[in-house]
Amino acid sequence: MWGGRFQDGPSAVMEEINASIDVDRRLYAQDIAGSKAHCAMLVRQGIISKEDGDAILGGLDRVRGEIEDGRLAFDRALEDIHMTVEARLAELIGEPAGRLHTARSRNDQVATDLRLWVRDALDRMDADAKGLQAVLIDRAEAHAATVMPGFTHLQTAQPVTLGHHLLAYVEMLGRDRSRMADCRRRLNECPLGAAALAGTAFPIDRDATARALGFDRPSANAMDAVSDRDFALEFLGVAAVLAVHLSRLAEEIVVWCSQPFGFMRLPDDFATGSSMMPQKRNPDAAELVRAKAGRVIGALTGLLVAMKGLPMAYAKDMQEDKEPVFAAADTIGLCLAAMTGMMAEAVFDTARMRAAAGHGHATATDLADWLVRALGLPFRRAHHVTGRLVALADERGAGLADLSLEDMQAVEAGITGDVFSVLGIDDAVASRTSAGGTAPATVAAAAAAARQRFLD
Amino acid sequence: MWGGRFQDGPSAVMEEINASIDVDRRLYAQDIAGSKAHCAMLVRQGIISKEDGDAILGGLDRVRGEIEDGRLAFDRALEDIHMTVEARLAELIGEPAGRLHTARSRNDQVATDLRLWVRDALDRMDADAKGLQAVLIDRAEAHAATVMPGFTHLQTAQPVTLGHHLLAYVEMLGRDRSRMADCRRRLNECPLGAAALAGTAFPIDRDATARALGFDRPSANAMDAVSDRDFALEFLGVAAVLAVHLSRLAEEIVVWCSQPFGFMRLPDDFATGSSMMPQKRNPDAAELVRAKAGRVIGALTGLLVAMKGLPMAYAKDMQEDKEPVFAAADTIGLCLAAMTGMMAEAVFDTARMRAAAGHGHATATDLADWLVRALGLPFRRAHHVTGRLVALADERGAGLADLSLEDMQAVEAGITGDVFSVLGIDDAVASRTSAGGTAPATVAAAAAAARQRFLD
Amino acid sequence: MWGGRFQDGPSAVMEEINASIDVDRRLYAQDIAGSKAHCAMLVRQGIISKEDGDAILGGLDRVRGEIEDGRLAFDRALEDIHMTVEARLAELIGEPAGRLHTARSRNDQVATDLRLWVRDALDRMDADAKGLQAVLIDRAEAHAATVMPGFTHLQTAQPVTLGHHLLAYVEMLGRDRSRMADCRRRLNECPLGAAALAGTAFPIDRDATARALGFDRPSANAMDAVSDRDFALEFLGVAAVLAVHLSRLAEEIVVWCSQPFGFMRLPDDFATGSSMMPQKRNPDAAELVRAKAGRVIGALTGLLVAMKGLPMAYAKDMQEDKEPVFAAADTIGLCLAAMTGMMAEAVFDTARMRAAAGHGHATATDLADWLVRALGLPFRRAHHVTGRLVALADERGAGLADLSLEDMQAVEAGITGDVFSVLGIDDAVASRTSAGGTAPATVAAAAAAARQRFLD
Amino acid sequence: MWGGRFQDGPSAVMEEINASIDVDRRLYAQDIAGSKAHCAMLVRQGIISKEDGDAILGGLDRVRGEIEDGRLAFDRALEDIHMTVEARLAELIGEPAGRLHTARSRNDQVATDLRLWVRDALDRMDADAKGLQAVLIDRAEAHAATVMPGFTHLQTAQPVTLGHHLLAYVEMLGRDRSRMADCRRRLNECPLGAAALAGTAFPIDRDATARALGFDRPSANAMDAVSDRDFALEFLGVAAVLAVHLSRLAEEIVVWCSQPFGFMRLPDDFATGSSMMPQKRNPDAAELVRAKAGRVIGALTGLLVAMKGLPMAYAKDMQEDKEPVFAAADTIGLCLAAMTGMMAEAVFDTARMRAAAGHGHATATDLADWLVRALGLPFRRAHHVTGRLVALADERGAGLADLSLEDMQAVEAGITGDVFSVLGIDDAVASRTSAGGTAPATVAAAAAAARQRFLD
Repeated sequence: MWGGRFQDGPSAVMEEINASIDVDRRLYAQDIAGSKAHCAMLVRQGIISKEDGDAILGGLDRVRGEIEDGRLAFDRALEDIHMTVEARLAELIGEPAGRLHTARSRNDQVATDLRLWVRDALDRMDADAKGLQAVLIDRAEAHAATVMPGFTHLQTAQPVTLGHHLLAYVEMLGRDRSRMADCRRRLNECPLGAAALAGTAFPIDRDATARALGFDRPSANAMDAVSDRDFALEFLGVAAVLAVHLSRLAEEIVVWCSQPFGFMRLPDDFATGSSMMPQKRNPDAAELVRAKAGRVIGALTGLLVAMKGLPMAYAKDMQEDKEPVFAAADTIGLCLAAMTGMMAEAVFDTARMRAAAGHGHATATDLADWLVRALGLPFRRAHHVTGRLVALADERGAGLADLSLEDMQAVEAGITGDVFSVLGIDDAVASRTSAGGTAPATVAAAAAAARQRFLD
Repeated sequence: MWGGRFQDGPSAVMEEINASIDVDRRLYAQDIAGSKAHCAMLVRQGIISKEDGDAILGGLDRVRGEIEDGRLAFDRALEDIHMTVEARLAELIGEPAGRLHTARSRNDQVATDLRLWVRDALDRMDADAKGLQAVLIDRAEAHAATVMPGFTHLQTAQPVTLGHHLLAYVEMLGRDRSRMADCRRRLNECPLGAAALAGTAFPIDRDATARALGFDRPSANAMDAVSDRDFALEFLGVAAVLAVHLSRLAEEIVVWCSQPFGFMRLPDDFATGSSMMPQKRNPDAAELVRAKAGRVIGALTGLLVAMKGLPMAYAKDMQEDKEPVFAAADTIGLCLAAMTGMMAEAVFDTARMRAAAGHGHATATDLADWLVRALGLPFRRAHHVTGRLVALADERGAGLADLSLEDMQAVEAGITGDVFSVLGIDDAVASRTSAGGTAPATVAAAAAAARQRFLD
Repeated sequence: MWGGRFQDGPSAVMEEINASIDVDRRLYAQDIAGSKAHCAMLVRQGIISKEDGDAILGGLDRVRGEIEDGRLAFDRALEDIHMTVEARLAELIGEPAGRLHTARSRNDQVATDLRLWVRDALDRMDADAKGLQAVLIDRAEAHAATVMPGFTHLQTAQPVTLGHHLLAYVEMLGRDRSRMADCRRRLNECPLGAAALAGTAFPIDRDATARALGFDRPSANAMDAVSDRDFALEFLGVAAVLAVHLSRLAEEIVVWCSQPFGFMRLPDDFATGSSMMPQKRNPDAAELVRAKAGRVIGALTGLLVAMKGLPMAYAKDMQEDKEPVFAAADTIGLCLAAMTGMMAEAVFDTARMRAAAGHGHATATDLADWLVRALGLPFRRAHHVTGRLVALADERGAGLADLSLEDMQAVEAGITGDVFSVLGIDDAVASRTSAGGTAPATVAAAAAAARQRFLD
Repeated sequence: MWGGRFQDGPSAVMEEINASIDVDRRLYAQDIAGSKAHCAMLVRQGIISKEDGDAILGGLDRVRGEIEDGRLAFDRALEDIHMTVEARLAELIGEPAGRLHTARSRNDQVATDLRLWVRDALDRMDADAKGLQAVLIDRAEAHAATVMPGFTHLQTAQPVTLGHHLLAYVEMLGRDRSRMADCRRRLNECPLGAAALAGTAFPIDRDATARALGFDRPSANAMDAVSDRDFALEFLGVAAVLAVHLSRLAEEIVVWCSQPFGFMRLPDDFATGSSMMPQKRNPDAAELVRAKAGRVIGALTGLLVAMKGLPMAYAKDMQEDKEPVFAAADTIGLCLAAMTGMMAEAVFDTARMRAAAGHGHATATDLADWLVRALGLPFRRAHHVTGRLVALADERGAGLADLSLEDMQAVEAGITGDVFSVLGIDDAVASRTSAGGTAPATVAAAAAAARQRFLD
């Protein structure tokens, strides 16, 4: 294609390292859509004839059909999807094919293709994340009053409801989706017409191609248009944070499914066995979701490294943009699907959750708060008093509610029997009605609000 | 502070690894602002008395003054900035200090503090990036017609103008600033009132504290509020892409200052010498800007790793959020300042730029385009013809314009003498008037538009 | 120092970004040792006089003393530790100071300094890792027969001993130390005498300086000598893997200290409380060790990024080598100390461990193996039979040992009462005497062997 | 295979995320070799019969043959290569196949397989790196006296020889190979016999299987043996540093091939053209090698993230070890091949190199050294004097050698005409005979020594 000045073809290793067709063939639909928009514009601007344009448009549709039917053989000698499509077009329609690349370079072509692909990927990712939110909101509503221990530092902190816990992930996914929307909006500028780096002398209409491809506008500077991979980096950044969120939920599944916790059980279709140990039911999918954060973070790191220190304008280094983007999109798609399945089908052992919430002096804060409210102690002093009561209970191997009033008064004389009204886990949970708090009614309202904010 | 149930204090190594005061003291202003907002709300809600509230507010102002005057000694035994401020407050005002922490945990407190700090950092970063844009736009306007070689693959591609080249970076910085704005908007929710993870039973008013601190609203879920570090990750992601942009400009400075290029010279105040080689004038600042992309990417990677796989809710792991955030903010601030200085003062050798644009057959595309326009050749054929002419010129050790008409016609019979009108670099540049193109008038208009889009 | 050809000093921002003295002052001892070796060699080779040499050597000792006594003010205008030392030397001894830098560049000087520093850091790190091994071996010996559940996928897998579990970390640390030794050996070549990048025309003796500084030999190529930061990258790689090991042990501490597990309790001096929840005893040190893997991985990533794509020879980018190296060394030192303290003082709840080992059908594999041995079933068939027995036991809410012989025979007719002899957790543990296995005697022998392999 | 206790098979998404056969099929040869060694040992120990053993061994050979001939269909329902091989074996030989997995788990099996694969990969990588060294040494010998500018900070520093420059990379590759050897030695311990995590009660002989597979010894602790992926991390670390080395050489190729440098030209079979600009000859392979450092660094980061914070023993997260290892091995193999081809065929423009060495006052250090030697000036003073002469020459637009003796004496009265003898670039190069220096004879000797050290 570009061989006029060359005498020798590429060496075998050159062809192997240079060819990207094994990877960028996934861009075929975007590539053909971009070429059609470009061709239609060339016709409208009188740069190529209507006849040539029609031949090209028809031919491109045939190429697309051949690819989708698996009839087009991909050949490394044609380097990439752009050359593959153009070469096949030339076989199909002859000379007019040679007019398609007028006022265009692969530099603006590939930048357009990948933007279109990432835009679609963001739409898919948004839908998948929304699907997981829907499942989490359903289950949060159902468990708005299910009491479990809330942990900080994986130590029993305060009793919370399972619904409260699940809604935390709904918020994370909401921010993820908000980042996707920002990324989508920002990338939605069309590089087509930037040509190699300088624009072109042909009287093209960049607004027309941008519009035809659903972009908001053409990119403002031709050199930037072909050199910019921000949209890929931002996409990977969005994916990495989402992957970290999923790794956190995955860790909780793994921990909750362990025998000592026993808070959750995955059904058979989300568990796997051991080749050696017949009793095993392993939460492999959760572990894989947790681990795959590594792959996405690695993809982000890798493309940041590739882009570091590249001078203007296009450099072949940028060809390394596709694999991390594809890998991250595939990984996130798979992880969201697996997580949605697990969270939809997980069986919660609410009795064990409830029992666990009763250990670890989970209502000690309620006692301290009572000292503030009922006795007017400064919180810091109330905290200290409660700490001493906890130490006393520990000494006795008992819970706070098991201490006698005398025990309590020995530490703080003003304590009355009313204190026992705040030491139950249900009381504790019900009392936390502050905005965003864990009281069942508050959680139920929050779930309803989340449904409106995220699913409508 | 939290010692009621403890008999022994921390071991020395425990204190060393646990104390964060050496790092988080940078949050003192945010911490005190947060405490004041919380205190004022507690008074308004009748949770503490007006007298105690006044004592606390006055005391907090005194603590802030002491810190700003360097009169407060920081002590590792007090762990962190929160305990340091509260302990000093207790020394200053006595018992009422113990009421400040009512309905609050360090978990929501530190999440609030760091959000406030990142919000300020984003504002500074935006101003700094805007400053660099201003310098670049100034120089782009002045050099809208200065011809230089445009490179792809660092090979001479087509002649462009220096203004066109510089405006590419203005676009990058524009996207960076757009990402900062999105990050700022998204983080602007107030965790205060989430308490440890469950909310509180005290009748607090979260809207009031949010409003007082300039937040758009309280965060929606208490567990998420204390466990979320998305805003730090997103900040680091924004910073990493910006650092990559700066590394690209830095690479260009290094290459352009090299003797074989000689496109640019940094003034003495942005050059350094060698301890051994007396003639050296090294572009150290550019190299450091290039390298510091590593530090920012490392900070991003590091926090992603720290957050990976953490179960709900707050875990001490999150204390590792501050150093990468501070390091990235400091690094970006320094790099933007250095780059602004270099770009403001750089001396361009426009004669060498112009001379370099004349080599490497930079107008070969113009010849091919002429064949399309004048002779009606398909572009692909025109490309091939031109390639053969380039090979011929190379054989002769000449430029394309040095070939005779006969030479040209031997390759493509239809070529006429008119072809020579497109082979000059000024003609080539002037012809690229497509939107975003490199023609001087187009660049001048783009610079004016950039001024309006980014600096107003 | 290098100002002969310069008219203007650096701008403020240039000085700020360029100066490394705030960081590289930690190299003072290495820098002075290197200068002394260089000076002594210059005298021996007749390049400078004995008198000048003596003045320099004496002066350098004084400078070192001043630094160690905190009497030397560090000034950013002097850029770095090299210039700082030389400038102070000049103040102290006058003109001879100007002879020290003969046949030397900062390029070979700083490469030497940092190698010496990393060499020392490796020695410290090795000693610290050995210290942790010693504690782990002690506790493994004491708990060679303490039964606990062995987990895979955090699911109960087979009963193991705590000693077996702890010795796994001893092996990891052994490999870490082996990597340290390799790194140390490989870096132990002396760059001094490489000068800027080309060597020197002065008749220096590189073997002499190498020997004087404890290096095995001079580096073989001067350009490589000043451009190579492999030793820093390898150091960071070693540290990153070690940090990952520590993060795994830290995760186990966090999980084991949780109330549902309750396998371990940290003493007061390795636990921290909550500002709000009076009952809390948090394993903060373990969480910080887990999180700090992020910092070390970030340091590694950062320096890899900085080094990527740098042309020969020295570039200022390499100045970014010190902060990640120092940060990783400090972090690892702190993490090893904290982990050593925690593992030395941790209180194991062996009763809860033992109880947990009895759940989850931990001896199902023993049953399958018995079917192979006693009945000659192929293992795959034995696995299947056992799986059905596990399902049956689950249905009954019972353990395998609670099934009746009739129950068992209903699934596999050949089973005899002898099967019950392998279903106890002590039997299971005692039977695994294969090399590296978990049988108490095997573990005790392994601990003794580890003591010899790693501590002698 | 493991389904005895399960009622339902995996869901579709579970199968998709869990199945690793698309990736781990590359381990088939290692898996079968490991199974054969295990089987032979089981027979020798009397754990299975000779007849069964022979059936298994013969069957495994047939499975291997089927895979190598492409006759075995891989099926996701069989999860991984281990199950695939065992299932096919069962089809081929029936019941004895079910005896192969006696005293074995997939945990020790896959750890063995991957170690064997990495060992082979290291051997290939070593051979490839040695091949590149051979080319570099050849060219260094041929260009031991070819003068070019040596750069630091990409500024002309001192004249060097091309041979000197190329030998720097020979050293880097030498260290890379040394790291490969260390990694190979350290990984060469056999996990087989560790079983799931606890060892086994069957009377196995771990020394025998280790020996049969070429391992130095069995791993010492069964839990560590199945949980350890150090060897993969270390492999990736070795690959990452090597990739950075290659990225540096790649950057030099890109810069040297640029028109302003013009030091190097790649032949047609290592250059590519542009789809739009007919004159282009782009160094795509070099750019890709430079960029692919990102992929390798990303692979390293990704696996470090995956391993961070995993508790003992095997977790499914570790299944994410293979893709980064395979990707890094493939990438390095391709990059070394491309670099070897480019360096073998690159055409150096020695005239342009020589001309460039004459600019930028490359011999200023020689002048300063002359002042030290001839006039006895302290080097620091000589440096300053030379700096002033450089400034004077710059003012005149001349080189140092173009200054008159009077000009020189005006700056430093003692200068004599002899000074001009050190200002030629050949003199400068020839004088640097210190060990590792750039003098042609020194370089020739260094190349000969490198041949012996690295290629014998």
